[in-house]
Amino acid sequence: MNRLRALKDLAFSKKGFDGFLAFNGTNQQYLTGVPGTACTFVRSKGQSIILVHPVNFEQANAEAEGFKVEKVKRNENVIARIAAHAKRSRIKKLAIDAIGYDSYRALAKELRGETRLKTRPDFVSQLRQVKDVDELRLMRKAGELTSEGMKAACDAIRPGIKEIEVAAEIEYAMRKRYSWGIAFESIVASGARSAYPHGGCTDRQIRNGDLVVVDIGARYHEYCSDMTRTVVAGNASEKQKKIYNIVKQAHGNAMEAIRPNVRGRDIDNAARKTIDDAGYGEYFCHGLGHGVGLEVHEGPTLNSESKDILKAGNVVTVEPGIYLVGFGGVRIEDSVLVQARRPEEFTEGPYTLEVER
Amino acid sequence: MNRLRALKDLAFSKKGFDGFLAFNGTNQQYLTGVPGTACTFVRSKGQSIILVHPVNFEQANAEAEGFKVEKVKRNENVIARIAAHAKRSRIKKLAIDAIGYDSYRALAKELRGETRLKTRPDFVSQLRQVKDVDELRLMRKAGELTSEGMKAACDAIRPGIKEIEVAAEIEYAMRKRYSWGIAFESIVASGARSAYPHGGCTDRQIRNGDLVVVDIGARYHEYCSDMTRTVVAGNASEKQKKIYNIVKQAHGNAMEAIRPNVRGRDIDNAARKTIDDAGYGEYFCHGLGHGVGLEVHEGPTLNSESKDILKAGNVVTVEPGIYLVGFGGVRIEDSVLVQARRPEEFTEGPYTLEVER
Repeated sequence: MNRLRALKDLAFSKKGFDGFLAFNGTNQQYLTGVPGTACTFVRSKGQSIILVHPVNFEQANAEAEGFKVEKVKRNENVIARIAAHAKRSRIKKLAIDAIGYDSYRALAKELRGETRLKTRPDFVSQLRQVKDVDELRLMRKAGELTSEGMKAACDAIRPGIKEIEVAAEIEYAMRKRYSWGIAFESIVASGARSAYPHGGCTDRQIRNGDLVVVDIGARYHEYCSDMTRTVVAGNASEKQKKIYNIVKQAHGNAMEAIRPNVRGRDIDNAARKTIDDAGYGEYFCHGLGHGVGLEVHEGPTLNSESKDILKAGNVVTVEPGIYLVGFGGVRIEDSVLVQARRPEEFTEGPYTLEVER
Repeated sequence: MNRLRALKDLAFSKKGFDGFLAFNGTNQQYLTGVPGTACTFVRSKGQSIILVHPVNFEQANAEAEGFKVEKVKRNENVIARIAAHAKRSRIKKLAIDAIGYDSYRALAKELRGETRLKTRPDFVSQLRQVKDVDELRLMRKAGELTSEGMKAACDAIRPGIKEIEVAAEIEYAMRKRYSWGIAFESIVASGARSAYPHGGCTDRQIRNGDLVVVDIGARYHEYCSDMTRTVVAGNASEKQKKIYNIVKQAHGNAMEAIRPNVRGRDIDNAARKTIDDAGYGEYFCHGLGHGVGLEVHEGPTLNSESKDILKAGNVVTVEPGIYLVGFGGVRIEDSVLVQARRPEEFTEGPYTLEVER
């Protein structure tokens, strides 16, 4: 209910709308607390409404607090139902979080002359970027589970094991400890494949001396975590150590720079400059980080073009990397809470290239 | 490359377009064979183009066959790049699979007077509904893995175990056998929660005599599977047995009805009539089934309003259920291949309410 109040304050009191439609599933989950709703309609006057298909109706009706839960038939025109509500509530200015072109056209036609429509994806995403205490508790737990998964990865990685077998051990370790699932496809990318930042995992057997990038995230309740470590199966070469230490230094420098009221681009630059100065700037082919929450990628953004300014309560990733095609890659990543003092690390674990046995 | 040819045949030769834009990630994966592309632009003349952000560029460039792979900068306006390509290729009629309202407006502005735009989500989805032999091989394997997961569920379910612990065993069993992941959040819904068709799983302890709905799916490569069994932890009551047998009969009757050239609504009706006749019609609150493939829910649709007509090569779910709020639910589901003879079941396993020990 605090979230609904915050949305009304932002969209209605501050921005002059008198209605808000959420079609994005994650935004609806954030506002209503229940999964699987078709549409959430927030009104400046009168109770807010959730539209739900029959398959999810009983659950939503039992679990949604502070909303009127309405069933929509399987073949019903949801847009027409929304338009009827908007007309009845005499909505003049309706904000929409996200909508496909065809649905927008249909809604605009129904409401012609009565209601102005405007897509405003920023309203809920702004709210979602600053986590409340309940969210932080769940995200801390998601981070703990992810760190346990990373321990399982380090225990499993050895020459001869397949990438996908390492992923099985990671996910089982997290799930056994009551993770709700994974935040994204686990990445266990070894050898030359470690140079692909989003390399997934395959049935490739890990070889002695391979770099192995492990990028994983548990979910706890609906909240995501995101963490990467890079290890060598066996003994690391001098070149592997050199690259690793540059990335580790970049990660540390970014961590020092993170605090409220700093621009995302300046945090990115703290890491990027370290890698640039070492002569590997062109091989750091992605931004430094991104917000994490109900989605594994959300705002704020930490890259060289970001105009976002960090706030206390943001949870962001710090993930510098160097990727040498044909040789391999190194990435080190943590999910951290932005706060007045040094950021709190939700993911934890040693920064060591060689796995101890 | 066959898929690209089939798309060109449908969209260009048959429907008169001369350009096609895919923004939907799954459609792009289907057409290009690589993950993580930003946009795929198919032209009637000249090579087709994939636009990729730097983070995924090297992988796409190495793995995409028959496409020109272009890097787009992180802050680049992708819509402007697409418009420039469309102008240079003198595209007159451009179909788009899916696009948000704001992007459509921006593209229409860039191309004003030169190119007509039309959203056509049906082109690729039509192609995707009829699986080729490569897809069937992967889906068969996904079904095998899912059936193994169900065995693990039946081995794990006993009074005292938590729903989420059962899910851990299921997913580990599938992953150890080289599943690429899960097709959707595993459902292990016990007791009164089994009456929620999309109940997920919680840390609730399963009790003696509980109905437990287990709805799971492995992914193999990018392909999904979908399967449900309902079991009782301990001995089943007469009412549980009665409901179970109605659902089992409905499932069997639908299986008998499935063949090419039959309407989706008629298959649904074969199951629904069985449940209606037994007096439980109002408690079967969802459609009978849906297509499965790269996504766990895709066309064709099997419900009472469906106008889809089955084709050989469709893979669909058959999943009747009865859900009694406060008592519990029963669902039985398989993923099956539509063919001239009786459908092939990709998911297999006994239809028994009481787990053997």
